[in-house]
Amino acid sequence: MKIIVDTLGADNGEKELLEASIDVYKEKKIQFVFVGDKEKIEPIIKEEIDSNDYEIIDTLEYITNEDDPVRAIRNKKNSSMVLAFNRLNDYDCDGIISCGSTGALLASATFITGRMDNVKRASLAAMIPTLKGSALLIDTGANADVKASYLREFTIMGNVFVKEVYGRQTPSVKLLNIGVESHKGNKLAKETYELLSKEKEIQFDGNIEARDIFMGKADVIVTDGFSGNIALKSAEGMATVLMGLLKKSLGELDIDNNSLYMISKTIKKNLSTFDYKEVGGAPLLGIKKPVYKAHGNSDRRSFYNALIGLTNYVEKDVVSIIKEKLND
Amino acid sequence: MKIIVDTLGADNGEKELLEASIDVYKEKKIQFVFVGDKEKIEPIIKEEIDSNDYEIIDTLEYITNEDDPVRAIRNKKNSSMVLAFNRLNDYDCDGIISCGSTGALLASATFITGRMDNVKRASLAAMIPTLKGSALLIDTGANADVKASYLREFTIMGNVFVKEVYGRQTPSVKLLNIGVESHKGNKLAKETYELLSKEKEIQFDGNIEARDIFMGKADVIVTDGFSGNIALKSAEGMATVLMGLLKKSLGELDIDNNSLYMISKTIKKNLSTFDYKEVGGAPLLGIKKPVYKAHGNSDRRSFYNALIGLTNYVEKDVVSIIKEKLND
Repeated sequence: MKIIVDTLGADNGEKELLEASIDVYKEKKIQFVFVGDKEKIEPIIKEEIDSNDYEIIDTLEYITNEDDPVRAIRNKKNSSMVLAFNRLNDYDCDGIISCGSTGALLASATFITGRMDNVKRASLAAMIPTLKGSALLIDTGANADVKASYLREFTIMGNVFVKEVYGRQTPSVKLLNIGVESHKGNKLAKETYELLSKEKEIQFDGNIEARDIFMGKADVIVTDGFSGNIALKSAEGMATVLMGLLKKSLGELDIDNNSLYMISKTIKKNLSTFDYKEVGGAPLLGIKKPVYKAHGNSDRRSFYNALIGLTNYVEKDVVSIIKEKLND
Repeated sequence: MKIIVDTLGADNGEKELLEASIDVYKEKKIQFVFVGDKEKIEPIIKEEIDSNDYEIIDTLEYITNEDDPVRAIRNKKNSSMVLAFNRLNDYDCDGIISCGSTGALLASATFITGRMDNVKRASLAAMIPTLKGSALLIDTGANADVKASYLREFTIMGNVFVKEVYGRQTPSVKLLNIGVESHKGNKLAKETYELLSKEKEIQFDGNIEARDIFMGKADVIVTDGFSGNIALKSAEGMATVLMGLLKKSLGELDIDNNSLYMISKTIKKNLSTFDYKEVGGAPLLGIKKPVYKAHGNSDRRSFYNALIGLTNYVEKDVVSIIKEKLND
């Protein structure tokens, strides 16, 4: 298996990504194509990865979040993203992962690699943490305007993904909605409810409200990219606020450093059961080859988890299974 | 001013609502119509509120969240909600507040009291806490399917509301979207952005992402009821999860009760700066008379805040100002 790692555009630099790649190399039979600054990449990996098992595509250019994605992939021919996706088209490459601009990733995947023949829209999903483990939220922002038939497609792709990559036997699929009753929601939600109710190969368990997203009540949560993005980011905003207030509180405590350390450690331990770094990455589904988006602020652990997700995506041949299911 | 208080359907019973009403009575020249269980209401208020300043409409029936709202207001003629809205139609009543079913409140307001003549859709807004105070999120679930012209109407109504009721001189209005750039979002968001950019009487400051809802970057945040509901509930779900993990952490600490008390108190103090109870209630805008939805689990403090919001809604004659602005 040969995996392309776009090492540019990560908030914490390439070091964390490369160390995570080395961690995976020690566990799996895998080869890498690293795209990025050769001078920085080589010293980190050359003692750890056999020279037959990696190549480096040297470039310093990358696409930023400020760039218009479609224009950027046309104009920035030497950007790491474009070079990486061009390389992905070669027969010997199996999958790609990047922390870079989500828009550029979507554009590159769609225009350089291409959608699977029978897929109307590629969809960016995300494995999110729940109190009982994790769930796949699909879509999370790739498709702001959708039809019910697209959501049906997202559901089938997401269902295959969690089944194969996360080993869930019969994933519980739910539709994100503003009430649990079948008659609730906007026109899109009602039409999608109808469509999903007719699908025989998935376990459709009805609607889920946004307050239950993190409770572990579903394996796959289906929604349009606008709502999915808002659900994720609103929760992120609330977490930021509460963690800030908690930190402020601990700073105000009139206790010795030892006790403070103990308290912080206990809180951290419990919160880590709910850390997105344990889950990692977001698969882009519906593209001809496996594509993974890793968090912009990935560290070694989260990038490791995302890489493992991607290697499973490749090994289980999720692309072929999705193709087959969508042809039914 | 005469305010109708629907005392049934609150999670914590009528006592908290009545005590909050007494608190407001001590501050403002106000009369009440209490709708609910006379046997429970009378003993609590009769020593505190002059008998000329209240009446009680005695009933035990109420509409639950399980009832179909439109059918319920037709069939449950003696429910507190229906009796309350019938009374609101009398010339001497100025406003109404209820903790009961949101759907029934919307249906009663629309079908018993009626929308303002020039309003296409009534909108349920919510004052939400932010790190800098509060903001109005509009809509939060009354309108799952909307057009850009409805969102324009919501914006104008919300702008008047925070200006008059919360005294914000030039409210900063933003559109909830999945990116800050003007070209971002779904078709609805793009059309709404266009419309709002042309409004001269509001300060439209562009898009806001869901992660910034609670940061205090806007006074009015406009969105459709589907997205608004998801934004609110997703944040609520995240807060529930994090507070649960925090509580678990405190329970695991190996410290004396005195220290634990001190830690909890400090955390509570900081979190209370961000408590929805400090904000209170959700105005329904676009109805011929002021209507307020209070939280189902209202306590004395939150219901007091909602009542104060409602009395300002009445005193500032927000209904007339909205009418005037929409006629422009």
